[in-house]
Amino acid sequence: MHNLKSITELQEMLQVSLEQTSFLAEPKELYEPISYILRLGGKRLRPALVLMAADMYNYDLKKALPQAVGIELFHNFTLMHDDIMDEAPLRRGMTTVHEKWDANIGILSGDALFVKAYQSIVKTDSKYLPALIDLFNQTALEVCEGQQYDMNFETQDDVSMLLYLKMIKFKTAVLLACALKSGALVADASAKDQQHLYDFGIHIGLAFQLMDDILDVYGAQKDFGKQIAGDILSNKKTCLYITAYEMANSNQLKVLDYYFTAVDFDPQEKIIKVMEVYSELNVKLLCKNMMEEHFAIAQTHLQDLEVSEERKATLQEFTQLLMVRVK
Amino acid sequence: MHNLKSITELQEMLQVSLEQTSFLAEPKELYEPISYILRLGGKRLRPALVLMAADMYNYDLKKALPQAVGIELFHNFTLMHDDIMDEAPLRRGMTTVHEKWDANIGILSGDALFVKAYQSIVKTDSKYLPALIDLFNQTALEVCEGQQYDMNFETQDDVSMLLYLKMIKFKTAVLLACALKSGALVADASAKDQQHLYDFGIHIGLAFQLMDDILDVYGAQKDFGKQIAGDILSNKKTCLYITAYEMANSNQLKVLDYYFTAVDFDPQEKIIKVMEVYSELNVKLLCKNMMEEHFAIAQTHLQDLEVSEERKATLQEFTQLLMVRVK
Repeated sequence: MHNLKSITELQEMLQVSLEQTSFLAEPKELYEPISYILRLGGKRLRPALVLMAADMYNYDLKKALPQAVGIELFHNFTLMHDDIMDEAPLRRGMTTVHEKWDANIGILSGDALFVKAYQSIVKTDSKYLPALIDLFNQTALEVCEGQQYDMNFETQDDVSMLLYLKMIKFKTAVLLACALKSGALVADASAKDQQHLYDFGIHIGLAFQLMDDILDVYGAQKDFGKQIAGDILSNKKTCLYITAYEMANSNQLKVLDYYFTAVDFDPQEKIIKVMEVYSELNVKLLCKNMMEEHFAIAQTHLQDLEVSEERKATLQEFTQLLMVRVK
Repeated sequence: MHNLKSITELQEMLQVSLEQTSFLAEPKELYEPISYILRLGGKRLRPALVLMAADMYNYDLKKALPQAVGIELFHNFTLMHDDIMDEAPLRRGMTTVHEKWDANIGILSGDALFVKAYQSIVKTDSKYLPALIDLFNQTALEVCEGQQYDMNFETQDDVSMLLYLKMIKFKTAVLLACALKSGALVADASAKDQQHLYDFGIHIGLAFQLMDDILDVYGAQKDFGKQIAGDILSNKKTCLYITAYEMANSNQLKVLDYYFTAVDFDPQEKIIKVMEVYSELNVKLLCKNMMEEHFAIAQTHLQDLEVSEERKATLQEFTQLLMVRVK
């Protein structure tokens, strides 16, 4: 039994592995964008989850690296295609692939990166292959579904909380869950523990996304690094908006409808008016409760794992890292 | 030992299987385009190759169906994304997905269809899974590379014959080869036979593409169903053009350069002038020889298979079906 690696150590290990892998091949128009997006960095938390789960069961982390790298490649593939669909000019402060090259390059390099993800993920003992690939296929399909729901929401004004939770589950949470389960799977964890880790990933992912929505409006700007209430200004359907919309009286509904469709508006006034409605309906607390509920469910799944408390330490550290306190 | 199924019977079997599979799920924006492109039809020759190879080794065709369907799903995924990149308005006489919906839907539905292809392909005995998925991953990556080379050629005027052959190998031939090898693989054919079938697929694919290039200019319109010399009019780098370009003297080079860059031209005159150069350089015969060479190599791989001649009958039938006689 070895000591658990810290998150920083795991991130370091992943960074070295990604830097050592050359994604450059011919034709360069196909492979340069892959190299480029992977060099943009990121915290590598998704692949770190694979390693954290594997480490929990004393598995040789070198052997779990291909699955971890595969999850990171898949994540970057989704970023490449999502950025085209969202017409995003920047990714991690740098020009997006379709802006630096063009949309065709973004589509095709993304496709190739998707295959590279599969190539990495399947590098495992054939005994685990059927379960691993089924899990990954299912997850990949759900991530596509999540992105489609998210795009639908832009023009859909009756988004229910149930559908919103489904969207963030698919768009964000399932990949965290898949990462954890993949690590546990190749480390030969019991089916029960695999499921607990999967469920932990789902609920910590949901809690994280709900927190993200709340902090966009109620977070201190310096902590969060984004424009305050950017979601309100861009008419994004967040848990705050949906909670408000579901409970609003006719006057409050008028305010929401007006500001979420207005083309000409004073940004400061829009934020103040919408936040007034949020405040009248106690939306922040309701969303915070929902977030804490998912956080608590995640914690129970972590508790129920059949490993010693010491071996859960890194995952606990991860939880603290992910969840900024919402006051 | 059962009787071989004819190509028509295999195509019928595939059609029934594809029609019985529902690709409709939520969100419908993601899945309707998948259903739509699969209903556009096509000859289903690629999946038929999976079944032909499996049938050769007396394998239960029902068990090889998922691999066959997976190859067809993959093929349709590439069509969906290629049509976006090529800005194609029509596919099989019907509106393309990105035209009927939009480019974002085409990208994301394509991605989902790609996952569906993987889901279908991996439905096999776990004993074959590692080899099958490696083959499929490699093929998928090469198909991306082929499409990238093809796009590069549009603005590249020094395309060598070697690079051209690489492009058509990757864009067209490897999927035929992969289909045949997949069928043989799950039917437990020997490694030697698997390789012969793969090589047969490569060379028959190359021969087919070279034939396609020749017929575009020299085929009778009624047999071919396309505009005569459409490739010349659209400045496509085909084996005819590349052969001519590699051998042209300075005068002939001037003619080629002029007509392949001219914006304002009389179509009839362009075809006549370019064909004059082709004729002076004996380009048709040279390309026909190259085609026949690949056809002959394909035949030797078919001969070398360690199965009885009767069991090769359907693949022979396929060869005849594919290769229209070039006079």
